[in-house]
Amino acid sequence: MATLLKGKEVAEALKQKLTVEVENLKQKGITPGLSIVIVGDRADSAAYIKGAVKRCTEIGIDCRVEELPGDMSQKDFIDDLHRLNNDPAVNGILIMRPLPSQISENAVKYEISPEKDVDCMSPVNVSKIMSGEDGGFAPCTPSAVMEILHHYGIEPEGKRVVVIGRSMVVGRPLSMMLLKEHATITVCHTKTRDLAEETRRAEILVAAAGKARMVKKDMVSKDAIVIDVGINFDEDGKMCGDVDFDEVNPVAGMITPVPGGVGAVTSTILAKHVIEACKVSSLKTMKFMCPKY
Amino acid sequence: MATLLKGKEVAEALKQKLTVEVENLKQKGITPGLSIVIVGDRADSAAYIKGAVKRCTEIGIDCRVEELPGDMSQKDFIDDLHRLNNDPAVNGILIMRPLPSQISENAVKYEISPEKDVDCMSPVNVSKIMSGEDGGFAPCTPSAVMEILHHYGIEPEGKRVVVIGRSMVVGRPLSMMLLKEHATITVCHTKTRDLAEETRRAEILVAAAGKARMVKKDMVSKDAIVIDVGINFDEDGKMCGDVDFDEVNPVAGMITPVPGGVGAVTSTILAKHVIEACKVSSLKTMKFMCPKY
Repeated sequence: MATLLKGKEVAEALKQKLTVEVENLKQKGITPGLSIVIVGDRADSAAYIKGAVKRCTEIGIDCRVEELPGDMSQKDFIDDLHRLNNDPAVNGILIMRPLPSQISENAVKYEISPEKDVDCMSPVNVSKIMSGEDGGFAPCTPSAVMEILHHYGIEPEGKRVVVIGRSMVVGRPLSMMLLKEHATITVCHTKTRDLAEETRRAEILVAAAGKARMVKKDMVSKDAIVIDVGINFDEDGKMCGDVDFDEVNPVAGMITPVPGGVGAVTSTILAKHVIEACKVSSLKTMKFMCPKY
Repeated sequence: MATLLKGKEVAEALKQKLTVEVENLKQKGITPGLSIVIVGDRADSAAYIKGAVKRCTEIGIDCRVEELPGDMSQKDFIDDLHRLNNDPAVNGILIMRPLPSQISENAVKYEISPEKDVDCMSPVNVSKIMSGEDGGFAPCTPSAVMEILHHYGIEPEGKRVVVIGRSMVVGRPLSMMLLKEHATITVCHTKTRDLAEETRRAEILVAAAGKARMVKKDMVSKDAIVIDVGINFDEDGKMCGDVDFDEVNPVAGMITPVPGGVGAVTSTILAKHVIEACKVSSLKTMKFMCPKY
């Protein structure tokens, strides 16, 4: 059986580190602040928001949820966003997606302050991730994958890494992040001709296809490290990943379960990004007040 | 012997199409304009600029070269750039790189108007290329690679494409562009463990490593399509690509020569981007003057 890569363990270790960082900031009179913005009733976001608020609050972040009316205009939404951009108590802004149809995500992404954009909506952050520049915010999910690899001492450098999926929330940014850490990356997707042939070559296989239990044992080579990003519900309503865990577990060397894998780390990554944003912002303030700082 | 993919043929076909487009624009009283900005004496840029001006002028683009003093301050440079951003006669701006050390490319890229940024310096364009959005400008070299593939009817969809090199001017954006056209892409680089094993799997192999004749025959599978992006000079001062042409030619199915391959297409791509920028800009002007347009 494969070694379990436990998201909860990764999240706990990161949480402890972050809690100390927030304590240090608070001793300087600084409290990191996160604003989660939700437009209209979105039952599907409720569980995520609840978890994120709980986790960020535990770490010491000042967390607010802005519930905005579902029928508000794009202009009003952007005005609200500008208010958050300019609010010094807010270091991170997380906009729950999808937005209602009258508000264009494509317009909004140019309006969120890149410095507060902790989930990589702004083109400035997308560009930083693509170019491998430091200082940008990647989306929380691919950052959670990297955190798991780092926590367990898994070094992507020189390894053959295969990513299934090419979305802007996981596949594409994760490929660029793995490339930055010197992996040889292959990106597969629905148009890949022989998917199993590609995935069997992977030393690290990341499944981010959004298709329940699609990765079967014949797609995984012996001792491969399997990271499952999928969150799906099967016909019985049971949560499952993109990997057929029972089949793949005996073949893989290491594997993340679902639930309890990548998904268990994302809200702690959100906290990490907020704290990073806060540190950059407070450094800027100090430089402004005391140019020699 | 492999079929030669001739850059000149691709460039000529594109030139004819673009010349007609410019004629149509001119009949409406619109002339596309390009400004090439060069700071200080850069002998290495002279040949490229000369070629670009010649090609763009032949196509009917109004081409100016702005030669700025090599010791100018960053502030003065950015002021000049803003002037070009606001000049309605300038549709495309090409800033020759590298810039002198007192001017930070990292600062400049946020200042160039994304609508006029015909060589993908702006994070807005980088982000569009990464996300596969329409309407952005990719850097001219990877666009030239795509143009060659399209001209010769080579369909990336479903194919295994291996790119050697992960630079921001070729490897990374090209990978994303090929992904948009549904290729299964692998990105290799100096840290790739067994490069030959990876490249032998390629149905399309793109060499963008910047290392003279590094792709040998044992790295190429029979009948592969080989695109050579390299422009190097060997110990005898002879121009050569990243591919050892004489060795690989008998193995490959199709191959681009150097010179006369990708490099022969880039300046025509520059013209294409300027014309696209001009069309978008004139459409905006018309919409502004006549909202019903």
